[in-house]
Amino acid sequence: MEKIVKYPDGSYKKFDKSNKHKDINISKSKLGQDFEKAINDSNTYYLQNKIAAIYKKPTPIQIVKVDYPARNKARITEAYYKTPSTTDYNGIYREKYIDFEAKSCQEDNFSFERIYEHQIRHLENITNLGGISFLIIEFSKRKEIYILNTPLLVEKYEDSLKGGRKSIPYSYFKEHGTLIEVSYKIPVNYLKAVDKIYFK
Amino acid sequence: MEKIVKYPDGSYKKFDKSNKHKDINISKSKLGQDFEKAINDSNTYYLQNKIAAIYKKPTPIQIVKVDYPARNKARITEAYYKTPSTTDYNGIYREKYIDFEAKSCQEDNFSFERIYEHQIRHLENITNLGGISFLIIEFSKRKEIYILNTPLLVEKYEDSLKGGRKSIPYSYFKEHGTLIEVSYKIPVNYLKAVDKIYFK
Repeated sequence: MEKIVKYPDGSYKKFDKSNKHKDINISKSKLGQDFEKAINDSNTYYLQNKIAAIYKKPTPIQIVKVDYPARNKARITEAYYKTPSTTDYNGIYREKYIDFEAKSCQEDNFSFERIYEHQIRHLENITNLGGISFLIIEFSKRKEIYILNTPLLVEKYEDSLKGGRKSIPYSYFKEHGTLIEVSYKIPVNYLKAVDKIYFK
Repeated sequence: MEKIVKYPDGSYKKFDKSNKHKDINISKSKLGQDFEKAINDSNTYYLQNKIAAIYKKPTPIQIVKVDYPARNKARITEAYYKTPSTTDYNGIYREKYIDFEAKSCQEDNFSFERIYEHQIRHLENITNLGGISFLIIEFSKRKEIYILNTPLLVEKYEDSLKGGRKSIPYSYFKEHGTLIEVSYKIPVNYLKAVDKIYFK
């Protein structure tokens, strides 16, 4: 039997009978994974060119049981996904602390169900402490990627808590976000957009 | 049968027949865990008092198999510890990016076997990019904790590669490091030492 599981980041993974991971044909997932890879490749470019040091944090796992099939080789045999305390990416750029969450959307809006409240509060904390923090949203069908600065994200989120819309539409990103350039050398050149917003 | 495993961070864990984690009486490990907890508690204090936002990164895990005992409940049934790409802790303080590795030593010296070369290079990258990076070492028997700034760590490491000593003795930390104050409110008040070194 095959099983498909949705992860908190909005991606999907398919597992076969032996529960080995498999590539999955749900386009949303594929695009989400491609998007993550594109950001990681961009970060590798930034690192190798001494532009920035920005890394994806490991997925937090709660380990319950560990086995030792061989000396010095620990095999984890029972573990669970944990809720991340913070965001996916952080690091340093132009001597500033930088922190963001990245999401890929197939639809023309970003639902607040896709992000934890404490992640929004974390981004808010970072901005309050003088760091750079934001959301990166890919609209996968449109092939457009935007940065939304944290104060705007928080404003829309607060609205949603007061009975307002539970998502942010594409049109809002188009009007208030900053478009990220895509190139073959730097797949998601988000630091160029960061320059425009935070270092103008 | 009980099994004891040494982890890359120098800590030890004991597992019983059912492979459940157990507290372990090796004082080195206990102290190492206490030390990590003390740093985490300090970070919680800094966060709650809006002084800094510094987090421990999750341990990187390579997931191989996942099971689904119930809907929406993924149980990882085969996974392995991965080598961390970077260091244990990073975040923001006084608008600066901050990054460090923390180790507890029972002996009066810190061996370079306790840290990966790429972690030293990572700390070096951060300093080169204008961030604050360092090593925190606890000498557990002495109950003394020091910060060693990255350039000094790198210098000693380069010496070791050229045939020099493969460890840094306590005396070096005492002379060239900065002592961290310990208090009941902030167990490891390392940011006070950071002020002395980087914001004087």
